[in-house]
Amino acid sequence: MAAKRQLHLGAFMRPVSLHTGAWRYPGAYPDANFNFSHLKRFAQTLERAKFDAFFMADHLAVLNMPIDSLKRSHTVTSFDPLTLLPALAAVTERIGLVATASTTFDQPYHIARKFASLDHISGGRAGWNLVTTSNPDAALNFGLEDHMEHGERYRRAREFFDVVTGLWDSWADDAFIRDVDSGIYFDPDKLHVLNHKGDYLSVRGPLNIARPIQGWPVIVQAGASDAGRQIAAETAEAVFTAQSTLAAGQKFYADVKGRMEKIGRNPDHMKILPAAMVLVADSVQEAQDKRARLDSLVHYDSGLASLSIALGHDASKFDPDGPLPEIPESNASKTSRQNVIDLARKTNMTVRQLAQRLGGYSGLAFVGTPRTIADEMQEWLEQRGSDGFTVNFPYLPAGLDDFVEKVVPELQRRGIFRTEYRGATLRDHLGLPRPENQFFRSDAKPATHAAGSRS
Amino acid sequence: MAAKRQLHLGAFMRPVSLHTGAWRYPGAYPDANFNFSHLKRFAQTLERAKFDAFFMADHLAVLNMPIDSLKRSHTVTSFDPLTLLPALAAVTERIGLVATASTTFDQPYHIARKFASLDHISGGRAGWNLVTTSNPDAALNFGLEDHMEHGERYRRAREFFDVVTGLWDSWADDAFIRDVDSGIYFDPDKLHVLNHKGDYLSVRGPLNIARPIQGWPVIVQAGASDAGRQIAAETAEAVFTAQSTLAAGQKFYADVKGRMEKIGRNPDHMKILPAAMVLVADSVQEAQDKRARLDSLVHYDSGLASLSIALGHDASKFDPDGPLPEIPESNASKTSRQNVIDLARKTNMTVRQLAQRLGGYSGLAFVGTPRTIADEMQEWLEQRGSDGFTVNFPYLPAGLDDFVEKVVPELQRRGIFRTEYRGATLRDHLGLPRPENQFFRSDAKPATHAAGSRS
Ligand SMILES: Cc1cc2nc3c(=O)[nH]c(=O)nc-3n(C[C@H](O)[C@H](O)[C@H](O)COP(=O)(O)O)c2cc1C
Ligand SMILES: Cc1cc2nc3c(=O)[nH]c(=O)nc-3n(C[C@H](O)[C@H](O)[C@H](O)COP(=O)(O)O)c2cc1C
Repeated sequence: MAAKRQLHLGAFMRPVSLHTGAWRYPGAYPDANFNFSHLKRFAQTLERAKFDAFFMADHLAVLNMPIDSLKRSHTVTSFDPLTLLPALAAVTERIGLVATASTTFDQPYHIARKFASLDHISGGRAGWNLVTTSNPDAALNFGLEDHMEHGERYRRAREFFDVVTGLWDSWADDAFIRDVDSGIYFDPDKLHVLNHKGDYLSVRGPLNIARPIQGWPVIVQAGASDAGRQIAAETAEAVFTAQSTLAAGQKFYADVKGRMEKIGRNPDHMKILPAAMVLVADSVQEAQDKRARLDSLVHYDSGLASLSIALGHDASKFDPDGPLPEIPESNASKTSRQNVIDLARKTNMTVRQLAQRLGGYSGLAFVGTPRTIADEMQEWLEQRGSDGFTVNFPYLPAGLDDFVEKVVPELQRRGIFRTEYRGATLRDHLGLPRPENQFFRSDAKPATHAAGSRS
Repeated sequence: MAAKRQLHLGAFMRPVSLHTGAWRYPGAYPDANFNFSHLKRFAQTLERAKFDAFFMADHLAVLNMPIDSLKRSHTVTSFDPLTLLPALAAVTERIGLVATASTTFDQPYHIARKFASLDHISGGRAGWNLVTTSNPDAALNFGLEDHMEHGERYRRAREFFDVVTGLWDSWADDAFIRDVDSGIYFDPDKLHVLNHKGDYLSVRGPLNIARPIQGWPVIVQAGASDAGRQIAAETAEAVFTAQSTLAAGQKFYADVKGRMEKIGRNPDHMKILPAAMVLVADSVQEAQDKRARLDSLVHYDSGLASLSIALGHDASKFDPDGPLPEIPESNASKTSRQNVIDLARKTNMTVRQLAQRLGGYSGLAFVGTPRTIADEMQEWLEQRGSDGFTVNFPYLPAGLDDFVEKVVPELQRRGIFRTEYRGATLRDHLGLPRPENQFFRSDAKPATHAAGSRS
């Protein structure tokens, strides 16, 4: 019997809950995003549950929302991912550690070196979520008046990737001899000077750190646009996405893996992991009640703003406690408008409840019992909507603990999620090959790995 | 009786030994610079000995030396300090953690955020060694043809400091209310938007992390030039320096503290900590023998290059095993030339031994018994040559363990070094005040702290 397709699970940990009401939920730690001892406990719990990775999103500015919503948001402060993850590396042993870092507002020498350092310190557990930065306000914190144009951001990102991976390959894997007798520390023939001069970047090299344990830390991408999908197909080994139905997930999955095949990459060398909020309880009703309670903690004004945007229509005149009235046509996205109308009709939610849902978290959510949740996850996996999920928890610690205690054993029982880590590195967990050094190829084996098949 | 002046001790841990022969010394770990488990053990040992701080120097390029020397150097690779120190923060509790970061090749938003994150994660133990970067090759790794001009580097550094400290003060210490009932996470009146536009930098802010636990991480400086001393006097709270005699130390100490007084800063609010190698043994002879053995591990060619530079004369024609011949006058620095000649006459070292000394480590060194070393340290302290030292160890682990087991207890016995940490933060260890927030002054107490007295 062929082995079952295996689910890969990342945990979305910045913010620790994407739901804006989470910090007010009974039993939550209001400062959890920003308290190392809580984050340590969460990482250790996720490791006990054999998660593939702990993932930190990142923003290089305070979120660009009106101050009246911002002042209610628990996401306003958090740790720099590349500072938090080394600390978590020291208190965990196996779980992967994926940090987001921007190609628009950083320098490839810094990025190559920091991820290489994290990879060495963690014993091969680092991953880089390569983003071009979504929040345009970041530009103002880095000496620019405006965000770099979208296409240009991605062209710079592509070159940035080449430079970073070139720097990681500065030293052959066996460059450091450390021969105490002869006094030779490294073999100069195993040092490559990059001498990169391109459209956006010029970087001499070599990097002042040995090649990462994983060869290269795992490359992650989260772009949604055509350019974003294309760079993912060319470079990424894991992809975060925000598809809220299985049909949309399947379309995205087929598109990105198709792009990989077109350029000769093996589609198995990328794991696609949509973001999903999972709320588990002992009955479906209890889970739905918890979600309703969580939504009720979102301030109505913040919710109204989200609802009005989705409808393309000012919702502040509606009766908060009545049903959603007929909405006239508008210029807004027809899909988001129709999604809200469908949700209202299906659930009989009031205007207030709809607003709070949209202001809280409105992406893909699995809300139910261990069995219904495992059914949905398995369906996505088997129907090629995804290779797993980037799970976010509705509130913490309880929502995370519930997932670990209830959903993970059910997935394990079905044989679609590991009961033990098989390897030591994030590449091992994700089933990804270790890239060969592009400047020092071993003659013994042909270059069939992800890196080689790209060039 | 007035309390005795107290010694402050930092440990110079990148490279773990400055001595280029260290990795070959019997019992040494050849990969110690680059092995997290060793660095963790060293940090924990230093903490048991109640060191003020663990210090990581930094370079943004491979050291600029000829490949024939470089290939013998154990310093060629090492961790990025801002990646290593968070990992060490997670496995220590009290010791300060000082990372070097460059104002020439980084962005103030990144630096402010990373040090703030480290300060929160470590519970107030972060320090920033603000450098303009000494290795000119770094420029080539950051898209530049040449190193920025010295004066300009320091002007940018001064503005960079203002921006970073301004960003740290983005939030009042009590900005985060986290009121679960009302749903208000922070008080918008306690948020300051920096809106900095200067000659070198323009940064809007606010920083997306709460004010550091220490208010500001401790500011450290290591500049030696006039501009370097001046920025230290204006901004620094600890200073690393490389003075190799007590007389030179006293002159530097008086100069920098005098500059502080001239601009109205309290000279006690800066600790001057010269770098010193300490090699301790049970007799002076044994200590000297160990040093000779260590020096003998330096490759003669690397040593010759250093000796020739110091003498301003090609030393490769000399008999390696004979005494230093008469050296004709030259254009080289008269001081360094005379220092070598004096050393040769005083010690009867051969040309080979002199070369190996200079190629190994030729700065300030205390080599002797616990008593002679404590005598020298105490003399520097009492004669105002320094407020303590940045100790480097000749070889590790033995040299570090010997210092901790033999020298530290002698210093404690004399009442000039702590037997327990008194406070929790690096500021506490160094006896430095916590800077008040420049945008949110508490009316209760006047602004007499370091930060306030500068403005
Ligand atoms: C799960 C997930 C996580 C993301 N994390 C980040 C992030 O940490 N920082 C960021 O700037 N953008 C992040 N993004 C946004 C993407 O990088 C990207 O900007 C967005 O999907 C729009 O795509 P495009 O840039 O290709 O137009 C994330 C997206 C998803 C789906
Ligand atoms: C103990 C000590 C540590 C230093 N650490 C660094 C360092 O990590 N990185 C760096 O670029 N320079 C370092 N320096 C060099 C100084 O930053 C400075 O460049 C040098 O002392 C020359 O002074 P100037 O820049 O004022 O001319 C250090 C100097 C000393 C004495």
